[in-house]
Amino acid sequence: MKMNIGNCEVLLDYPIANLEKLIGEKRAVIITDSNVRKYHENKFPKAPVIEIGQGEEIKTLKTLEQIYEKMLNLELDRASVVIGIGGGIVCDIAGFVASTYCRGMKLILVPTTLLAQVDAGIGGKNGVNFKGYKNIIGTFRQPDAVLVDTSLLETLDLEEMKCGYAEVVKHAAIADEKAFENLENCDDLFSVSNLKDIVPKCAAVKVNVVIADEHEHGERMKLNFGHTIGHAVEKILKLPHGQAVAIGMVAEGKIAVQRGLLGEKEMSRLENLLEKIGLGTKAKMDAKEVVDAIRHDKKRRDESLKMPLLCGIGNAKIVEVSLEEMERVINDLY
Amino acid sequence: MKMNIGNCEVLLDYPIANLEKLIGEKRAVIITDSNVRKYHENKFPKAPVIEIGQGEEIKTLKTLEQIYEKMLNLELDRASVVIGIGGGIVCDIAGFVASTYCRGMKLILVPTTLLAQVDAGIGGKNGVNFKGYKNIIGTFRQPDAVLVDTSLLETLDLEEMKCGYAEVVKHAAIADEKAFENLENCDDLFSVSNLKDIVPKCAAVKVNVVIADEHEHGERMKLNFGHTIGHAVEKILKLPHGQAVAIGMVAEGKIAVQRGLLGEKEMSRLENLLEKIGLGTKAKMDAKEVVDAIRHDKKRRDESLKMPLLCGIGNAKIVEVSLEEMERVINDLY
Repeated sequence: MKMNIGNCEVLLDYPIANLEKLIGEKRAVIITDSNVRKYHENKFPKAPVIEIGQGEEIKTLKTLEQIYEKMLNLELDRASVVIGIGGGIVCDIAGFVASTYCRGMKLILVPTTLLAQVDAGIGGKNGVNFKGYKNIIGTFRQPDAVLVDTSLLETLDLEEMKCGYAEVVKHAAIADEKAFENLENCDDLFSVSNLKDIVPKCAAVKVNVVIADEHEHGERMKLNFGHTIGHAVEKILKLPHGQAVAIGMVAEGKIAVQRGLLGEKEMSRLENLLEKIGLGTKAKMDAKEVVDAIRHDKKRRDESLKMPLLCGIGNAKIVEVSLEEMERVINDLY
Repeated sequence: MKMNIGNCEVLLDYPIANLEKLIGEKRAVIITDSNVRKYHENKFPKAPVIEIGQGEEIKTLKTLEQIYEKMLNLELDRASVVIGIGGGIVCDIAGFVASTYCRGMKLILVPTTLLAQVDAGIGGKNGVNFKGYKNIIGTFRQPDAVLVDTSLLETLDLEEMKCGYAEVVKHAAIADEKAFENLENCDDLFSVSNLKDIVPKCAAVKVNVVIADEHEHGERMKLNFGHTIGHAVEKILKLPHGQAVAIGMVAEGKIAVQRGLLGEKEMSRLENLLEKIGLGTKAKMDAKEVVDAIRHDKKRRDESLKMPLLCGIGNAKIVEVSLEEMERVINDLY
């Protein structure tokens, strides 16, 4: 299956072995991390490799500088291709590099985690962290191609898989009730043969949202479901992204319930599915601290913000929520 | 006069006093340098000012980092506006910042030098230098508006004015014979009342070239006339950009003459106009050193490159030139 976001080809379930064909005669460089390299280097196309460290702490301007220097030493120019092979962090960094080195080069992404295959690798957002702000320095820039090969997921450990599922659930919850039901009914969410079916459908949700609103002026904000509170929880409790997003989805779901947008029964379905995956849905936290983190994250003094809320399973809309309301709901939760 | 490059409005001969209207109710930040601030702060709109140093050495990733930090402290977000007021360096830096902070903000440029009004401020190329490579890290990103107010040129010193004229001559030489004649016949090239007439026409040449080829795949390469050899000369002899470009245009003109593309008489017109402005047209240099610098600048081992050559006054085309041919012509020159 192939979808297009402008000139970007999103190749859903496309074997990494075909990457050579996409590169053709162009000079290329691979950006990856040590873990991905260990498991998958035998499938890499022939090209020099720039290896970066792992973890969110590596997403810095300093890392970019090190990559730029290596690319200069490799004598790459704007006719060369950057190939990012890895999870969300590799995709974010490779994307930023390809959009700024020589004012822009060709970019191919090969996401290797569930999170990146359904979310981070698709949509053209990239960035690095700065002074405690996530992805605050970056660009919107579609890759030329995104190649999703679900066989790469075989080497993922269970924790990474669970975290990726938070975004799978999110996509189903905001835009695809049928996909949500399929997840509820799936006998084994972690088998690669089931993922071969789940991933392309879920990635397609993201592609369609991005096509509708590439620069995040409206529709695309729906993808932030679970992330307003999730990002704050991630920061405060130092949880992995997916686990924090699961907690964020539940808390934001409760706001929707209180507003009468989401039924109690639908709320339970969301909680049950997250629990089936093995994601926590609650965490002990101080409501005021969460709200302060959100205020800081949004860099503004405003006492309310626009965020997506569920109005049923498979449906979301952007509404204005005050920080005071958010604090009250979180207080009631725990 | 107003022209458009996509969504970018290029406002030719538009008073800086109207800037307030363009900003409207948005939060804004001004990026400028100390010199521009000294002369023109009284005309700035009300907004916090981030002042950067002067000179090409300031165009670094480090400077970007300092600006990003100040912008975070000012709590600016993607709905805010960056206003770059200054010469080419300020425009390049403000452009890069606006295209990467929060993944892109609104950008208004107010070029204050002749060079920036006819060239650097128009066209959406930005960038910083890295490891000795000029503008190697940057993006293509059109500003939302470029405001050209020729009255700002009154405070320019003669050397800056001359340097700006190198790009004025370049634009006329590659695309507008009538403008070239007007420059030849102009009684005082440095009077602001004459510039009020010259600048918008010359800026319009740039606008039209950019419209034809925003991402520099063909037509836009014509704007590199004089710059292949010019950049090398700038680096080796540490000359100001405009002076180096003047020398580059003459040297590249000679290549065109040798190839029979440009007549001897037209070559003399180019040299005479540059001399009338007070720009040097020759410099003692080692041809091999120049060619080595070009090879380094282009980051490639190829022994030839594509560059624009004049074929008459007001006309240029992109041709393949070998480094060996270039070396021979430069050797014959001096």
